[in-house]
Parts: sequence; structure tokens; C-alpha cells
Amino acid sequence: MSNEVVKAIKERRTIRNFEDKPIPDDVLQTLLEAIQWAPSWANTQCWEVVVIKDPDMKERIKASVQDGVGKNNPAAKSVVQAPVVLAVCARLKDSGYKKGEATTKFGDWFMFDLGLACQNFSLAAHSLGLGSVMMGLFDHDKVAEPLTVPQGYELVTLIPVGYPSKIPSAPKRRALEEFVRENSF
Amino acid sequence: MSNEVVKAIKERRTIRNFEDKPIPDDVLQTLLEAIQWAPSWANTQCWEVVVIKDPDMKERIKASVQDGVGKNNPAAKSVVQAPVVLAVCARLKDSGYKKGEATTKFGDWFMFDLGLACQNFSLAAHSLGLGSVMMGLFDHDKVAEPLTVPQGYELVTLIPVGYPSKIPSAPKRRALEEFVRENSF
Repeated sequence: MSNEVVKAIKERRTIRNFEDKPIPDDVLQTLLEAIQWAPSWANTQCWEVVVIKDPDMKERIKASVQDGVGKNNPAAKSVVQAPVVLAVCARLKDSGYKKGEATTKFGDWFMFDLGLACQNFSLAAHSLGLGSVMMGLFDHDKVAEPLTVPQGYELVTLIPVGYPSKIPSAPKRRALEEFVRENSF
Repeated sequence: MSNEVVKAIKERRTIRNFEDKPIPDDVLQTLLEAIQWAPSWANTQCWEVVVIKDPDMKERIKASVQDGVGKNNPAAKSVVQAPVVLAVCARLKDSGYKKGEATTKFGDWFMFDLGLACQNFSLAAHSLGLGSVMMGLFDHDKVAEPLTVPQGYELVTLIPVGYPSKIPSAPKRRALEEFVRENSF
């Protein structure tokens, strides 16, 4: 069984190398709409996005990524190479909450909802001939500083996006038999 | 800008009402492959899936969902109505970890990675004429019990999936201007 959507899901790769080529405004708008249309806990839509194109800001972000735990992050260079970097942030204490109280053992569901939104983004990007990489390994407070992320919000992931100059082969996947069971674990 | 992928992203709805019609095996396999092909932290692929078709197990799960915080969950009935329910679980302490230690302030990234995988699933389902609902509001330990989810793993979301009998209109989305900024928050 296949179709354009299933094909995109299977053919999307994480892209860390980009051409020196800008993203047209209407393409970027479509990518942001992909985030907008993600599902979320009780439609709370806790995503907040900073679109970074400014070369100085990209240099600052790259330096902050490489300062600390992200020192050897293989995507640090992508931050300056990509024409656009998204800083995807979350509004806290809304997803998974009811009347100010967490409803489940997982507390705030912002990580889950941002995952949903970011996958929409990466699939839309792939479908339009672009590539992207979701970066998580860096000191989040350090990188959030130049972006002036306010209290009550968290920077979660940086996503460099652009036209791929190199498309890597797919890393090995676990077989279905390894992670699928019937009726009980 | 549009194409089949962008269209699926925008037209996918959360579906809670299903026809009494089974999902063919090859279709279900494709949906599970959509999870398999999700990106994840350093390719850790921490997802574990229980496919539930057994009517008795679905009744037990529904009863557990309605016992406690999920009492008024509008998707509880979907668990018995849908031909298939996925229980998506996570293997803990792998995503976001290095040598047994969390690398970032967010600790375990299993919620983010499961979000990526579940959105692949819901888009693939939509593209094949199916609908689904991601359920989060229930007592996770209570529901995990009949599924015998072992220590070191967590049940995160239940996803009833099937052929939609009712497609609701889209809940209101925040405008791009409300959540997109340039260069700093």
C-alpha cells in the first residue's frame, strides 16, 4: 500500500547539509501552516515559533549550541548553513492541564504536541523538495537567551531547513516484529 | 503551495466515530510502517506498539479509561467502536540520554519522539481513508495493567483507528501571526 503521503513518510531523511539558496516566502508560509494544522491536546496549540534568517543571529545560535553539551552536535554547522532556522518553543502548563493542574502522570504534554507539530513540518518540507534536521542536543537555556524566550515558555528544538546538498542513506530501522505486539505487551 | 502531503496535513481531522468495518492487514501494516519510519533522537526508536483487536480487551481498556480522570473522555467509546486500537508505549531512558544520563533539561525525550511517530501514523491513516484519535486523558497505570506493560516502559497514548462514520469540522487554529516571530521571541 502506498501513496504520496506514505512515500513522503518513508523517503524523508534528516538533512544536515544545505545549498546556499533561499526559501521562497510562499514555501516558508506553507511549512508554518503545517505546524498550524497539527493536532494537540484539547486543541491547546502550545507551539511558538521563531523564524531565524539573520546571519548574525544564526552565528550566535551556533556558538551557543557548541558551548556545552552540544559541543559535538553534528548539526551545529547546519544552523549557519541553512537559509532558515526554526526555533520551536512551547507555552507551558496548558497541554495536559485542566484548571491549572496536570491531569496525567506525564505532567505537561508540550513535548508530545511539539513532536506532532514538528513531524508535520518535516514532512511538508520534504514534500516541497526541502530537508530539515530536528536538533535537541544543546544547552536549551543558553540558546534561548539570545532569542529572548520569556518565562513560561521553553525552547525545545532548533530546526535548520533548506534545500539539501547531500541526502544521506536511511539509518537502520527496527523491524515491525521487534516493536509490534498483539493484545498485550 | 500545495501537494498531497500538505493537503493531508490540512485535511486530517481527529475521528472519534467509526464504521463497523475491519482494517485489511496490508493497510494496518502500512500504518505500522509509518511509525517505523519516524525520526527519533539519535535513531533510538523508543516506540513499542500493542495492536488491540480483541473485543474483550477493548472493553477492559474502555472501562479502565473511564475509571478515574478519563471518566468523561469523549473518545472512550471509540476504543470499543474502532476495529483496531493502538496502545503506543515508550522504552524509557534512551531518547535524550547518553551513557545512562539525561543530556538536556527535558530529561527523557520519549514524549517528543512518540509525538513524531504518532503524527506519521495519523497522516498515513488519513491518506488511506482511515481516521484516528490520539487519547491522552486517562489513568495511564490503570490502562497499562491489562496490557501488561513492563517496568522500564510507559503507555503514553491509545489510538483508536478505523473508517470514519462522522468527520467533524476543524477546530479553530491560531493564526500564523499569533505564533510566528522573526529572529527573536
